[in-house]
Amino acid sequence: MTTLAFSGNPLVRPSAEHHAPEWFESQRALPDARFLPLHRLEAPVLDGATPHLAWWDAGVLEHAVDRADVVLLGTLGGIPHLAVAVTEPPPTTPEGTEFRDARRLASILPDTEAGILAQARSMIDWHTRHRFCAVCGQPTLAIEGGARRRCTACDARHYPRVDPSVIVLVEFEGRALLARRASGTAGNRRSCVAGFVEPGESIEEAVIREVREEVGADVEAVEYRASQPWPFPSTLMIGCRARARSAEVRADGVEIDSAEWFDRDEVAAALEGRSATLEVPQAIAIAHHLMREWVEDRR
Amino acid sequence: MTTLAFSGNPLVRPSAEHHAPEWFESQRALPDARFLPLHRLEAPVLDGATPHLAWWDAGVLEHAVDRADVVLLGTLGGIPHLAVAVTEPPPTTPEGTEFRDARRLASILPDTEAGILAQARSMIDWHTRHRFCAVCGQPTLAIEGGARRRCTACDARHYPRVDPSVIVLVEFEGRALLARRASGTAGNRRSCVAGFVEPGESIEEAVIREVREEVGADVEAVEYRASQPWPFPSTLMIGCRARARSAEVRADGVEIDSAEWFDRDEVAAALEGRSATLEVPQAIAIAHHLMREWVEDRR
Repeated sequence: MTTLAFSGNPLVRPSAEHHAPEWFESQRALPDARFLPLHRLEAPVLDGATPHLAWWDAGVLEHAVDRADVVLLGTLGGIPHLAVAVTEPPPTTPEGTEFRDARRLASILPDTEAGILAQARSMIDWHTRHRFCAVCGQPTLAIEGGARRRCTACDARHYPRVDPSVIVLVEFEGRALLARRASGTAGNRRSCVAGFVEPGESIEEAVIREVREEVGADVEAVEYRASQPWPFPSTLMIGCRARARSAEVRADGVEIDSAEWFDRDEVAAALEGRSATLEVPQAIAIAHHLMREWVEDRR
Repeated sequence: MTTLAFSGNPLVRPSAEHHAPEWFESQRALPDARFLPLHRLEAPVLDGATPHLAWWDAGVLEHAVDRADVVLLGTLGGIPHLAVAVTEPPPTTPEGTEFRDARRLASILPDTEAGILAQARSMIDWHTRHRFCAVCGQPTLAIEGGARRRCTACDARHYPRVDPSVIVLVEFEGRALLARRASGTAGNRRSCVAGFVEPGESIEEAVIREVREEVGADVEAVEYRASQPWPFPSTLMIGCRARARSAEVRADGVEIDSAEWFDRDEVAAALEGRSATLEVPQAIAIAHHLMREWVEDRR
C-alpha cells in the first residue's frame, strides 16, 4: 500500500535517554530551534507552488496560550522542532501565511510535513484538554518536554492518548460493503465500516463486533492491511479486510442508515470521482486505499 | 496463531441502539443479572478441577465502592453481566472463592472467562482513575451503563482508554533479537522489543522507532502478525515481525540493558522451559506466540 497521509514524520522523537528536564530546556533554548504555532488547532502554511509549514523562532512564545505547554516534537539534523498553542495568529506572520485545518493541509503538504503536523495537532489538543488530573481533579503540569503531564497534588503521571480504531473493507463474492453514516448531509457518500477498539478486545474482535453492530453482518478471515495516524484528535486507524458469511446486511439505523454491496467497477468509478451514485473518501483517508487495493486485487 | 489469552470474550457488548439510560437500568434490575466484584482489581475465582469466575447477584452492590460506577459488560443469552469495584471481598463469598490477579487467572480460566475478566479489569480501573474531568477538574459521573463518563460541570464526555503498544520479533539471518529489561531482577529473562504507539505515528513507524530507541537497530519489512488485549491496565498489544538491516545492536542502557541474537534451537528450548541461559515469557503473553511462530516457521 502507498504511503498514507500523516505517516511520513521524519523527526527523531525524544527517547528514554533524554528524559532529563535540563536536556529539554537546552533544546528549547537553541538559537536555531523551530516553533510551529497552532491557533485553534490550525497550522500555518505558506502557500505557493510548493506549500509548506511556516515555522517561527522563539519569539512566537510571546503569543503562547501557556508557555509551560511547549511540546518538543523531535529533532531533525540536530535542529529541535517544537509546537505551541497560541492565542492568536502571530502578527509577525510572513506574507502569504494562512492558518488552516490539518484535513485541508494533508493533501497539499509534503508527506514529511503532514506527518509532523499530525504529531503536533494530536499533542497540542491533548495538552489543551488535560490541564487537570483525572484521578484527583487538581491541576497538572507538562513535563519531559511535553511528552507527559504530572499532577501537582497527587503526582500521578498522565500520558498522551492514542485511540485505536478499526476500519474494514468487508467483501462477499466480488462485492464490497459500503455504509452511509446516519446524517442528513451524507448524500451518496459511503465508506468502510469503522469504530474504536474497546477495552478487552483484540483488533480482530473489534472488527467482528463493529460490523455486527453497525450493519448486522457476520465476518470471518479478518486480515490486517495497513495503519495510519489520524489526528482528529488522536486516532490510530487500523485498516483491515474481512469476508462476510453471507450477503445479508441490516443497517443499525442509528450510526448507519444504509449498507449496500458494490462491485469493483462501481467502486473504481467512485475512486476516480466519475460515479453519479457513489461518493467515497478522498486519498488522505485509509478507507480510500483499502478500496483501491481491493479494486486492483482481483483474487 | 492460537487463541491468545484475554481474547475470548463471548459477551454481546451494549451498542449504539441501547444508549438509553432506562435500558441500562432495566438490565441491571433483572433478577438473573450477574455481578463480578473486583477487589483492588483482583477477581473472585472458585478453584477446583475446573476453576471459574464467581458471580454474585445484586446483593453484592452493598459492598460497592460507588454504586453509580457499575459497568454493564454485556449480555450472554439475554443475561446481563456487570462488574463493580468493592471495598472488601463480600462476606457472602461461597466456600473456596479467592480473589486473584488477572495475570495468575489468565492461564487457569477458560478463554471465555479470561476475556470477560480483561474487559472488567480494564473498565473498573479506568473508572477508578477518571473520577474527575481532565478538561476542567470537576467531578465526572458514569453514564450509558459505565461505557463513558460525563463531566458534571462542563459536560465533556470521557471515553475509556485503550493504549496501543507494538511488540516485535526482530530477525536477522535466522536469529531473533531478544532484549532484557534494565532491572536488577530480570536475570535470564528476555523478550521481544515493545513500546507504546505515540501520537502521530502508524504501527509500522512505532515498530521502527522503538527498535531504534531501545536496541539501536534499523528494521524493515514490518509485518503484522496478531493482536491481544492486555488489561494492565488497558493495552492493545499489536504483535509484529520485522527484519533487521544488520546484526549490529546496542542496548539503550535505560530501558534495556542487554540485546542479543538467539537461534531457533535456543528459543525453542526456552519456550519449553529447558534452557539454563534463556527465560522467555509464559504462554499468556503474545511475545511467547511470536517466538513460537518464528521457531516453527523456517522460511
